Amino acid sequence: MTSFDLSAIDTPALVLDEARMRANIRRLAEKLAPLDVVPRPHLKTAKSVEVARQLLAGGNGPATVSTLREAEYFAAAGVRDILYAVGIAPGKLARVKALRDAGCDLAIVLDSAEQARAVADAAAHMRDTFPTLIEIDCDGHRSGLRPDDPRLVEVGRILHDGGVELRGVMTHAGDSYGAVGDEALAAFAEQERMAVVNAARMLRDAGLPCPVVSVGSSPTAHFARNLDGVTEVRAGVYVFFDLVMAGIGVCELDDIAISVLATVIGHQRDKGRVIVDAGWMALSRDRGTASQRVDQGYGVVCDEAGSPLPDLLVTGANQEHGIVELRPGSGAPLPELPVGTRLRILPNHACATAAQFDEYHVLSADRPGEVLRWERMRGW
Amino acid sequence: MTSFDLSAIDTPALVLDEARMRANIRRLAEKLAPLDVVPRPHLKTAKSVEVARQLLAGGNGPATVSTLREAEYFAAAGVRDILYAVGIAPGKLARVKALRDAGCDLAIVLDSAEQARAVADAAAHMRDTFPTLIEIDCDGHRSGLRPDDPRLVEVGRILHDGGVELRGVMTHAGDSYGAVGDEALAAFAEQERMAVVNAARMLRDAGLPCPVVSVGSSPTAHFARNLDGVTEVRAGVYVFFDLVMAGIGVCELDDIAISVLATVIGHQRDKGRVIVDAGWMALSRDRGTASQRVDQGYGVVCDEAGSPLPDLLVTGANQEHGIVELRPGSGAPLPELPVGTRLRILPNHACATAAQFDEYHVLSADRPGEVLRWERMRGW
Repeated sequence: MTSFDLSAIDTPALVLDEARMRANIRRLAEKLAPLDVVPRPHLKTAKSVEVARQLLAGGNGPATVSTLREAEYFAAAGVRDILYAVGIAPGKLARVKALRDAGCDLAIVLDSAEQARAVADAAAHMRDTFPTLIEIDCDGHRSGLRPDDPRLVEVGRILHDGGVELRGVMTHAGDSYGAVGDEALAAFAEQERMAVVNAARMLRDAGLPCPVVSVGSSPTAHFARNLDGVTEVRAGVYVFFDLVMAGIGVCELDDIAISVLATVIGHQRDKGRVIVDAGWMALSRDRGTASQRVDQGYGVVCDEAGSPLPDLLVTGANQEHGIVELRPGSGAPLPELPVGTRLRILPNHACATAAQFDEYHVLSADRPGEVLRWERMRGW
Repeated sequence: MTSFDLSAIDTPALVLDEARMRANIRRLAEKLAPLDVVPRPHLKTAKSVEVARQLLAGGNGPATVSTLREAEYFAAAGVRDILYAVGIAPGKLARVKALRDAGCDLAIVLDSAEQARAVADAAAHMRDTFPTLIEIDCDGHRSGLRPDDPRLVEVGRILHDGGVELRGVMTHAGDSYGAVGDEALAAFAEQERMAVVNAARMLRDAGLPCPVVSVGSSPTAHFARNLDGVTEVRAGVYVFFDLVMAGIGVCELDDIAISVLATVIGHQRDKGRVIVDAGWMALSRDRGTASQRVDQGYGVVCDEAGSPLPDLLVTGANQEHGIVELRPGSGAPLPELPVGTRLRILPNHACATAAQFDEYHVLSADRPGEVLRWERMRGW
């Protein structure tokens, strides 16, 4: 294993293991290749041009974003085929239009007649076709029309007749994050597939176009056995992975590509506690593993080289203090960790933890021992 | 009430009601004035020079920070008396020294002989006195030495004999956030006071200096009845307040000065759900009210003018989606909130929610109807 000298990095800091990231990207690409779908990776996890260059087909191929600021940032970097995968508010169409005028094929998402009418009005007014996907609810998780909802055809017709490009349907199996194991995840993937395939059929049976049939979540993308009728797959968190993904069996701990570098700043030895300078401001407040079989607290503690320390977790977090203790019930010894010791903490949720930082310290895959800096964007 | 036109602000956005902020600042200043203590407000909540100008005595008086980046940012803006209130890692002393050389009286905090020796070594090596406060543990919450711990004198002596300026003792009653009501909070304030007063006495009895006796938490600052022996009070979140503070009785809902402006982007009417474009990326993952008597979900929903809507909460949050529902058990009707409706969401935890944004949209107290922009800093 290549060793990297992190001693010059002020803590807390976000560390990205590029070799692990590449392996994660390659794994899903190889998984999806025989399934005849276009990958449209979600950039909301990484929010980085350098990551996008490695994640997207050809470096700037189809992408998904969660905010218009992301769309603007990646379009400026040359990404020209973007799906903004959060339901559109009509007041945001002026920014959509500006990006489209600048040459980005930006598509939007909606799930109501109310929105469809507003987009059709804007299409006429702004002289744009505003390519639109109708969001389908495959699992009751969040937004979307159920695939058998008759309003689906109504919405499609309002768009199509109103001069909007009805590009297709999309869904996100958000509840798949609550599934565990191969069979449960494969079943979720099939449920997700059936929802959009049925929705697409309903639109086509009504004489409406539906060229794109889009699914996407990291768990279902990795466990889908059949994607017949699906044209593209969106997934995001897999680029880094995290403890939640490990907890449901999508990855192993040593696939997790990001961690928070922290320094020991104190002890409460009588309580078996070590205090580090990574609190919730660095780790985020995400407690996604709290509802899983194994609760990982605010993160799994590794040594500076990235190897997990037996049973050591961040069990509590104040703004700039993390409290490190042994996992409840552990028989492992509490290691000596003098003040100044560097540690690395694996995150519950890569999207949330990475969002607390403005840059990555990258353990280069190509230049042994070299630590690069890549910027992250944020905002809306 | 002055009305403000927020329609030009893209959502989600962080709104700051300057009049409420001023009232919050004034209230604590008036509370502390007769208690003969120096206020040393904590800037970790606001992270804004414009807020600091109103919060600090004379605009740049004594301040507390939670990161060295904050110290650098506020020192550059003219704040010259700063306590960095997180236990020091020796590797950070070079940055402390640079700030001190630039004219900022920056003091540090520690709680072990190990740190004291490292600071004494650095003091000799870097030719600085590194003013240091010993952290006292008043409630078992986090860091610090118990006030009756004999190591307190040992640490003090290592510092004093090692050429370090032993400036005093400090504590933070973090567990006061779990107390509720006047009596419980007053008792916490007294416990906090006694801890540092006793610690100061132990140092002085050993012939060591202890000019500063510092306490601080927003709950205890507001409910302390007697601060005899205390020289300064640090408090932070009170500048904005939040739902956690309201839940323990330190403020009312209409004292909360920040909110997240959001737009309705969809509905699941059969489930009684409204979807907004403020998810956890805007609201943070903080669920501080989950353990309180009244769980406020991810925040209390207000209309665009800031008036709470009866029983409407953000009950769930994905990255860029907030799910708004009636409070469990509510008999209130779900209001019609068409797509495009603007709402404002009061946060559980002001520090965490504000940290998700790079700027405030400020409802000016001095210029009726005018919305200003103030930047926020972040990072370490």
